[in-house]
Amino acid sequence: MSRERLVIIGGVAAGMSAASRARKLNPQLEIIVLEKGRHVSYGTCGLPYYLSGQVAEARELVVYTAEFFREKRNIDVRLEHEAIAIEPGRKSVHALDRGAQPGAIGYDKLVIATGGAPELEIPGSELGGVFTCNDLEGAIRLRHFLEQQRPKRAVIIGSGYIGLEVADALAKRGLEVTVLERSESVLEGIEPEIGERVEAVLGQHGVRLMKNAAAISISADAQGRAAAVQYGTGGSQPAELVVLATGIVPRAGLAQPAGIQLGRTGAIAVDERMQTSANSIYAAGDCAEVRHLVTGQPAYVPLGTTANKQGRVAGENAAGGHARFEGVVGTLVTQVFELGVAKTGLSAAQAKAHGFQPDAVTITSTSRARYFAGKPILVKLVWDRATGRLLGCQMAGQEGIAKRIDVAAMALHARMRIPDMLHLDLSYAPPFAPVWDPILIAANEAHKKMTRS
Amino acid sequence: MSRERLVIIGGVAAGMSAASRARKLNPQLEIIVLEKGRHVSYGTCGLPYYLSGQVAEARELVVYTAEFFREKRNIDVRLEHEAIAIEPGRKSVHALDRGAQPGAIGYDKLVIATGGAPELEIPGSELGGVFTCNDLEGAIRLRHFLEQQRPKRAVIIGSGYIGLEVADALAKRGLEVTVLERSESVLEGIEPEIGERVEAVLGQHGVRLMKNAAAISISADAQGRAAAVQYGTGGSQPAELVVLATGIVPRAGLAQPAGIQLGRTGAIAVDERMQTSANSIYAAGDCAEVRHLVTGQPAYVPLGTTANKQGRVAGENAAGGHARFEGVVGTLVTQVFELGVAKTGLSAAQAKAHGFQPDAVTITSTSRARYFAGKPILVKLVWDRATGRLLGCQMAGQEGIAKRIDVAAMALHARMRIPDMLHLDLSYAPPFAPVWDPILIAANEAHKKMTRS
Repeated sequence: MSRERLVIIGGVAAGMSAASRARKLNPQLEIIVLEKGRHVSYGTCGLPYYLSGQVAEARELVVYTAEFFREKRNIDVRLEHEAIAIEPGRKSVHALDRGAQPGAIGYDKLVIATGGAPELEIPGSELGGVFTCNDLEGAIRLRHFLEQQRPKRAVIIGSGYIGLEVADALAKRGLEVTVLERSESVLEGIEPEIGERVEAVLGQHGVRLMKNAAAISISADAQGRAAAVQYGTGGSQPAELVVLATGIVPRAGLAQPAGIQLGRTGAIAVDERMQTSANSIYAAGDCAEVRHLVTGQPAYVPLGTTANKQGRVAGENAAGGHARFEGVVGTLVTQVFELGVAKTGLSAAQAKAHGFQPDAVTITSTSRARYFAGKPILVKLVWDRATGRLLGCQMAGQEGIAKRIDVAAMALHARMRIPDMLHLDLSYAPPFAPVWDPILIAANEAHKKMTRS
Repeated sequence: MSRERLVIIGGVAAGMSAASRARKLNPQLEIIVLEKGRHVSYGTCGLPYYLSGQVAEARELVVYTAEFFREKRNIDVRLEHEAIAIEPGRKSVHALDRGAQPGAIGYDKLVIATGGAPELEIPGSELGGVFTCNDLEGAIRLRHFLEQQRPKRAVIIGSGYIGLEVADALAKRGLEVTVLERSESVLEGIEPEIGERVEAVLGQHGVRLMKNAAAISISADAQGRAAAVQYGTGGSQPAELVVLATGIVPRAGLAQPAGIQLGRTGAIAVDERMQTSANSIYAAGDCAEVRHLVTGQPAYVPLGTTANKQGRVAGENAAGGHARFEGVVGTLVTQVFELGVAKTGLSAAQAKAHGFQPDAVTITSTSRARYFAGKPILVKLVWDRATGRLLGCQMAGQEGIAKRIDVAAMALHARMRIPDMLHLDLSYAPPFAPVWDPILIAANEAHKKMTRS
């Protein structure tokens, strides 16, 4: 009797979570991971801190090496193996070993964990001095460039959280940094009040933010290296370094030709078990959709935490288990210089677009007792006028942001209404919080507004 | 038509919250606050930090002064007015003005917010050099003693959170500190694994903890000042300073003779509207009971946050509103030197005593991404084997404790089961959390244990 074989395409967060989970559940299973890059299982979210030098060595970001997985977990990790096609009818995957002739690998169960790819469709993306910051190899090349070429001016295209984290990192290295944002706001989906704080802190650290400035092309110098970025209607910003951070699109190129259904977001459609439309094929991580528990709709929210959870669930089910992943509430936190910014759920604008009747309050409080030198915290709560249900929360402040947003995330998971949130028994001691936690102050303001109208 | 009159007995957290809330709802109401001390509206929880000197001046702890309430909120605050009797039949309160002859004050609505009193029934409590740390005047006297008498050795009787915060404060001032604890454990209701960490940090800072060492009496020197504390079966610990921190009992002495019902805890029984058994009389804060939402039973949990919430609800209802306070889940956080300690819900032992079938896991994780110099966090989760419902959570660690316990508090509010907690969408970024938050790691371990058994 031959062993059952699980093949996993992609060896970063979702892929290696799936492999590890499957191994735990089934010591007999043959597990093969096809990873097109040279590293597995690294913390993508740590890349900006590697650029700044706060994380000194790339290897610190690697949770476990390919050798570890091979030797300690009996997982056949194949680096520099790029999957190029899936044949669900024959239950096989075609892959290139270091660009060589393709070979076919049969599977009993397949997990697609191909991740996301940077959106980078502007002319000049291929020039020297142009980088992305989406994988470890890209980040290593970029840091090498920073250390060897010592560029003075950088343009970052895109002001999502990765763009801003990279801006922070490059400014800390002493570069003159310009961020080009095509829309009117940094951090897509951020409330205007929070966005203002982010813009202020960028300005305080000398980062130039240009909004409504869509990048059009990157021009080269005589040596064929990036020299300037053209944007908007005739603008041009000189830079020896350009970082493309316009966002992530799902790498779903293997799925569609194999007849695996994509969702409306363009990512692979999955159910709660992470099963795709094709028999015995699961998908997880930045290539897959996820259910947004506030809207109830499938969404594309590529994040490391979700990739880990989906990978784990896919791995468990691929190994014969019965795990379910219900979905996300859209929690995100990032640090822009000294400012923490966090969100969960929907912004007022997003809520409206999803057919809710949003109302909102914004309050300012502090991170600790007043006499304990607390830092200001801005909290915005969004709820549905029709039902009183909490729809979203955003915060900005220098401390006490990250785990405080989790209180709102929990309220979203529990589908709490504003009246349910007035007297939550949240922790208090002077070094940690004011006696009325900022979330409670915001909930009470929201309630006042609800009962007044 | 004469104005309706609200009388409030007690002007600290619950009392002034009630007064302020009533004023907001009803600008016409006559509001009289009878406060036996010389200060109102101060942060009791900040007293240990005033002792250590981290809070330089007592007035920093005062949120608003009596003058502020009189002038800005039209609240008739009467300092050094001690209520001595309530006559519900006549709707009047008898009070002493600075120890003078009693006068009667009629009320339409009454809020009892008399707070808690230190348990201090050992011989010698009245000696010079013996203090409590339960109100601002006591703390001012204690700090004055520290600065004028410069005692070298202190004994703290009791190792609840106030006892330990005072131990921390006195050790920071350079005193030799001994803590006497009558039971086998610091911090009543703490899990043994967490208690061990607390004991370790006390030891590292030179605080001597003696467990199973009930204080019996305080002996005096020739000048009638505290000289030593006798404890256990023949022990004696010399000290020029003794702090009584054995706990708080409800100040319910006015309620019982007035026929107002006390609960089994000895505190005043109240419903969700903070109404007592007597018509038009409310109670709030450390003199009142509170419903514990995990057990469903009335409990005595004297804490500043609860006092504020209950006071606000009592004030709103006394002014004709319809507010409700559902109860607490037992959240507490404290800082002992560099160690944060937090709990919510029930310990395994408490759960068993309440008829649950508790099971538990304890895990160690970190406060941030591994490559971001996270500090260890210990998490213990307790759940009910019969239903899978979360019953409690405790944590210890040098950072990331206070608001992380709130995630568990929210899970208790929402009556989540362990299977509901496996994939919560909690915030993640390397400076703030590991990719699997410690709470999620604990929940997954708990789930593993549940499904194994």
